Amino acid sequence: MTEWMKALSLTKPVIQAPMAGGLVTPSLASAVSNEGALGSLASGYLSPDMLEKQIIEMQQLTDRVFQVNVFVPESRNEPAEDTVRIWKNKIPFAEQAPPFSSEEEEWEDFHEKINIILKHNVKACSFTFGIPPGESIQALKKNGCSLIGTATTPEEAVLLEKRGMDIIVLQGSEAGGHRGSFLPVSGESALGLMSLIPQAADSVSVPVIAAGGIADRRGVQAAHCLGAHGVQVGTPFLMCEECEVSETYRRELKKAQGTDTRLTSLFSGKPARGIVNQWMKEQQAEEANALPYPLQNTLTKPMRKHAAKEKDSGYMSLWAGQSVGMLNGPIDVKTLLAELC
Amino acid sequence: MTEWMKALSLTKPVIQAPMAGGLVTPSLASAVSNEGALGSLASGYLSPDMLEKQIIEMQQLTDRVFQVNVFVPESRNEPAEDTVRIWKNKIPFAEQAPPFSSEEEEWEDFHEKINIILKHNVKACSFTFGIPPGESIQALKKNGCSLIGTATTPEEAVLLEKRGMDIIVLQGSEAGGHRGSFLPVSGESALGLMSLIPQAADSVSVPVIAAGGIADRRGVQAAHCLGAHGVQVGTPFLMCEECEVSETYRRELKKAQGTDTRLTSLFSGKPARGIVNQWMKEQQAEEANALPYPLQNTLTKPMRKHAAKEKDSGYMSLWAGQSVGMLNGPIDVKTLLAELC
Repeated sequence: MTEWMKALSLTKPVIQAPMAGGLVTPSLASAVSNEGALGSLASGYLSPDMLEKQIIEMQQLTDRVFQVNVFVPESRNEPAEDTVRIWKNKIPFAEQAPPFSSEEEEWEDFHEKINIILKHNVKACSFTFGIPPGESIQALKKNGCSLIGTATTPEEAVLLEKRGMDIIVLQGSEAGGHRGSFLPVSGESALGLMSLIPQAADSVSVPVIAAGGIADRRGVQAAHCLGAHGVQVGTPFLMCEECEVSETYRRELKKAQGTDTRLTSLFSGKPARGIVNQWMKEQQAEEANALPYPLQNTLTKPMRKHAAKEKDSGYMSLWAGQSVGMLNGPIDVKTLLAELC
Repeated sequence: MTEWMKALSLTKPVIQAPMAGGLVTPSLASAVSNEGALGSLASGYLSPDMLEKQIIEMQQLTDRVFQVNVFVPESRNEPAEDTVRIWKNKIPFAEQAPPFSSEEEEWEDFHEKINIILKHNVKACSFTFGIPPGESIQALKKNGCSLIGTATTPEEAVLLEKRGMDIIVLQGSEAGGHRGSFLPVSGESALGLMSLIPQAADSVSVPVIAAGGIADRRGVQAAHCLGAHGVQVGTPFLMCEECEVSETYRRELKKAQGTDTRLTSLFSGKPARGIVNQWMKEQQAEEANALPYPLQNTLTKPMRKHAAKEKDSGYMSLWAGQSVGMLNGPIDVKTLLAELC
């Protein structure tokens, strides 16, 4: 057993990916933790109140360690008013969207969530989209919380280690959902795991966890050969009975092949991998003009909500990794974890 | 030892990638074959006469099996005259380019090359960009030649097996140089090896070889875990003393990280992964309007030739995979192969 597993009292080197947007609830995360892997709550689109409610529920459902994932706010360039108006006209139901949050409000939300994590003594906390502020890192560490960063390049991994992360999740280009990239690159940051893991593993001394496209035992073993100390798995958990995804989404997951997915910024303003659908097809040419995160996300929220209610997969975000074609299911968490390792 | 290695009398499960454009010569390929791996000549941009000359030279340098790689011509939509004129004005030295070849001429070239391969009893032949015609497949098989197809998706692998390929190279998104994709997909065909190998391995019964981002023993072992029967390695061979790349190119390879690369159609008209340079930066916005292969290639040839002569890496094609950051060197073929397995 490697050190990171010992620190988190894990018996399986598997992290359930913290998939935001209502996909993971205490029901899924606690089932994962109870099997000896690391269950994850995703605070990304939750209000601080809702997060607190989920943590309390989670602590009733499991005695084992779980993590909360938090999005790190990014400084953003305010878009031109014209661009905003164009999107408001283009996105169905955008007129029902709430006002845009400011960067200041994003940070307030971040700090409130960190305080809740501290208050409830959550023992692991992961970050996406960047590096948390030093004060948050110090406070969490003082509280005995393991810190998990997300990197898409060796350079990001190095910086995360330097700033105090205890574990680094390496997200390969295969991964579904949002890419956690935060440093600029001259080419593209979407490295496949075959390239990313060995280079990052050689660059840092903390444990690295492979994420992206891992759907069975073969992927877990390959990640290990490449130098990873564990794996993070997302899409396969969406087929678990314990996961609260809609039947519409699950049906699309079951039909899709990896080549049906691509990266898109059209839902949130940040690149994320999902199954190509009507919205992505219609707006493909406008991809590069999407509003910065989280503004695009705010405007598409009513559209996505409406589509989910109407069971219309054409306008929902259907995040999925490139191994979506390997999914069987429905399955339960125990069986999935037994198949992984 | 697996069956495909026995059939080709290999002692190492490694194929040297057939990198076209003057990068591989009999000096490199014979060194590889002599070490018990599969050396490869690349006929892509060679005249049939030049290919014949290389095969004869190769047979003087090694008694072992080697392969010749052949590009399969594609049917193309003739571009609008306007688009051609725009590119002729934009590409430096394009006025020195020879006339465009017709599809018919491409096929004549293909058949001449197959006849040369037959005449000289070459024992392995690989194909990129598609499926060779049935008559060529039959003739080669009758001659005892092993046939190797290139797939970027499980669907392409299935089709290649159905049409008679004995071995299938699975090219992951990590790979440098041209992508071998030939079937349309609804999302993107650039699957990372972590997703591509297990799905393709489950879909075909012939041996599959993993290509893309494999630069050391860890990658070879990971590919094996994922279900591959061997690996194909490209970029690392460019650092070998036996490889005739220019010092300019080698210097760029040594400096580059995987995140300095991206896929581009700006050199040839087909997507290929290379180190981002001046030409790719200047024309990035025009990427989607590149002429179909091989027309763009024909027009950029004088530019690339001129840049190579001037040691100007800004206008050369600097193909490289995402593990380019792992390269050490110079190295020799024997040492590289010993490091791989």
